[in-house]
Amino acid sequence: MTTSQQQGERRNRREPGERRGRRAWDRCARLAGLTAVPGQIDRFYLTPEHRAANDLTARWMKESGLHTWLDEAGNVHGSTGQRDSRRPRLLIGSHLDTVPDAGRFDGIAGVMAGIEVAGGEWAANFPFDVEVIGFGDEEGTRFGTALLGSRAVAGTWDDRWWGLEDENGISLDRAFAEFGLDPERVGDASYAAKNVVGYLEVHIEQGPSLDRARIPLGVVSSIASARRFEIEIIGEPRHSGGTPFDERHDALLGAAEAVLAVERFSIEHSVIGTVGRMEVEPGAVNVIPGRAVFSVDLRAHHDHQRDDIIEQFRELVTEVADRRGLRATMKQLHEAPAVYCADRLKEAVRAGIADVQDETPPELFSPAGHDAMAIDAITEVGMIFMRNPDGISHHPAEYVSPDDLGAGIAALAHAVQSLA
Amino acid sequence: MTTSQQQGERRNRREPGERRGRRAWDRCARLAGLTAVPGQIDRFYLTPEHRAANDLTARWMKESGLHTWLDEAGNVHGSTGQRDSRRPRLLIGSHLDTVPDAGRFDGIAGVMAGIEVAGGEWAANFPFDVEVIGFGDEEGTRFGTALLGSRAVAGTWDDRWWGLEDENGISLDRAFAEFGLDPERVGDASYAAKNVVGYLEVHIEQGPSLDRARIPLGVVSSIASARRFEIEIIGEPRHSGGTPFDERHDALLGAAEAVLAVERFSIEHSVIGTVGRMEVEPGAVNVIPGRAVFSVDLRAHHDHQRDDIIEQFRELVTEVADRRGLRATMKQLHEAPAVYCADRLKEAVRAGIADVQDETPPELFSPAGHDAMAIDAITEVGMIFMRNPDGISHHPAEYVSPDDLGAGIAALAHAVQSLA
Repeated sequence: MTTSQQQGERRNRREPGERRGRRAWDRCARLAGLTAVPGQIDRFYLTPEHRAANDLTARWMKESGLHTWLDEAGNVHGSTGQRDSRRPRLLIGSHLDTVPDAGRFDGIAGVMAGIEVAGGEWAANFPFDVEVIGFGDEEGTRFGTALLGSRAVAGTWDDRWWGLEDENGISLDRAFAEFGLDPERVGDASYAAKNVVGYLEVHIEQGPSLDRARIPLGVVSSIASARRFEIEIIGEPRHSGGTPFDERHDALLGAAEAVLAVERFSIEHSVIGTVGRMEVEPGAVNVIPGRAVFSVDLRAHHDHQRDDIIEQFRELVTEVADRRGLRATMKQLHEAPAVYCADRLKEAVRAGIADVQDETPPELFSPAGHDAMAIDAITEVGMIFMRNPDGISHHPAEYVSPDDLGAGIAALAHAVQSLA
Repeated sequence: MTTSQQQGERRNRREPGERRGRRAWDRCARLAGLTAVPGQIDRFYLTPEHRAANDLTARWMKESGLHTWLDEAGNVHGSTGQRDSRRPRLLIGSHLDTVPDAGRFDGIAGVMAGIEVAGGEWAANFPFDVEVIGFGDEEGTRFGTALLGSRAVAGTWDDRWWGLEDENGISLDRAFAEFGLDPERVGDASYAAKNVVGYLEVHIEQGPSLDRARIPLGVVSSIASARRFEIEIIGEPRHSGGTPFDERHDALLGAAEAVLAVERFSIEHSVIGTVGRMEVEPGAVNVIPGRAVFSVDLRAHHDHQRDDIIEQFRELVTEVADRRGLRATMKQLHEAPAVYCADRLKEAVRAGIADVQDETPPELFSPAGHDAMAIDAITEVGMIFMRNPDGISHHPAEYVSPDDLGAGIAALAHAVQSLA
């Protein structure tokens, strides 16, 4: 074949991908309308908006010829087989929930892509069922603990979560009941490892690497090792006018030193560290802060990097607290080891991408967490990243083009075929 | 006279002061029960708690033989003369409102001391009326702008304040109406300078100088030159995982640098600077802060010190914002020039203190603002500070002993007599 012939064939293969990309993209826009706050996107686990998103997604799954069901944790499934099928399953998934004031594509685009692939005519004669899952909670926005939907499917549900409360004091078990789910039956949502042949996920890159390199798709190598902490600093809330500096125990000043250290240590050690939350009490113009509470979110390629910096940070906080006469406590909110994508799935994904894109796909580390982290407990995982202009995510400006989404769908379809 | 005779006479003069100190102290405790939040002290301008405090204070004024009235700004007055008396007035005042979760004595103790002095038998035959005022707003807790009560009396009310809103969106003019006051008539609360012979205020020291020196009472030399700002820093709220450090515009990191600079500059220039409020948005663990808003409260002996440090701070904020790709704006919320106590009133106060205390009273600068600042617009002012253990104020642990309060009352009474 000549080069122009090759390009012609590649174009022919891309065309259905482009139509499917446009349809999946339009569906992301439709789902954006299902929100608790009109004018922005706020769709959280086990809410009326979650139910509406499940209903609409299930309708689209059915229209693509898939069998659909809601599982015992509120995740929506669509499969080439029945729920009780005895055939092995290849899972494709991502999530339908959002952060507050979110973009349209984080998670959502992966579920819509999965429908295009599982519902394609190519999936009919595989030796396994192809099943797409729209997980109900990945972000952890409502109950503070992430990946609830995918952990239910992975069978790693923790009964201590039932007491978690949302900001209105509604516990997770009550939210289950209000959604029409039976907390006692959450175990029925889980899959045994022996019945699953793998898990694939397409997701927007939540960073700028592909956009900078001008490449539509990339292969994910691993998902970050992560730990999250809440740090509380207690000082003394005294009058801002009358208290001389040598008698001050200002919680905010201690916190400010710690916040800057998170940045400094992270850059020094090539990890990613962020303080996203900071609350100060009593919060009056003329009262010295008596209490400051802030979050630390750390992500690293490998677990030991992450743990080293945490020890260094803990020492710094202790030193600052001693010097300023403050009390500091660190509480871990979340810990996830690094998850490495399986070689055979990386190969399948790479082959799929080669089919739709001229550029060699880069291997990308994912600092952000994904449902694949949870599903790794029962099967090997592989992921495709799609180009995201400027890497903006968790923000209304988050974007993936219909063409790049179409390329992602085509590459995923090819990867699934190569596994079959 | 021998020294022991002198001490005996001083003791005799102190005895009525001690009884009055105990009564005034008990009244502070009674007023502490008039609060919006049971279990703490929250009494704000033009609230039901404010009305209850006015009613109780007026009852005590009447019991001391004073004529009482409520003025057109919600301040309660008690005088040896009628409201429409043509005699000159010597004003004694402080405030009945509090900060959130306050102590019992800030302001309150001065009003109760004023009742003891104006209501004493000694005040009957003076060439002026002695009038005590319980101002309704000094702290500015409800509407964000301080000294509303005393500014009404000083005739420096600003009609732009009518649109100020409390945290429930109730405007100041609506709060006036709901309290039964007519906004149109607020000017009637003001006194002409020619009718007022001076203003005296007794207040707890909101700092530890007297306690450290083990001296009950001090003479105030001046009240701080103050400015307050709100600084807003705008960055970009992006995903904490996917955004590399060279693409971050983290509003909290910029704010943290500024917060530490407020402390550093303040210590270098011997002024008092505090960041009491800090709010961060969107405030999610996994989103880089896109906006941080914080307050800066600066107090200095002299205006030029204060203004110099503000220019230095403004330059630092600009440098930080440029370096981090942030936008920063500084909005002034409050400005007050230094107010210097009048020599003749300092002399009167010093003589009064000498009558009840062996130790020479130190001259103290007040970093905290007081109603005297506003009243300075119509008459000369003088102030007495009372010892405050550990200098704790704006906090439930705020304290003055009944004995020290009694000493303050006796010294104030003597100062008023010497002016007569």
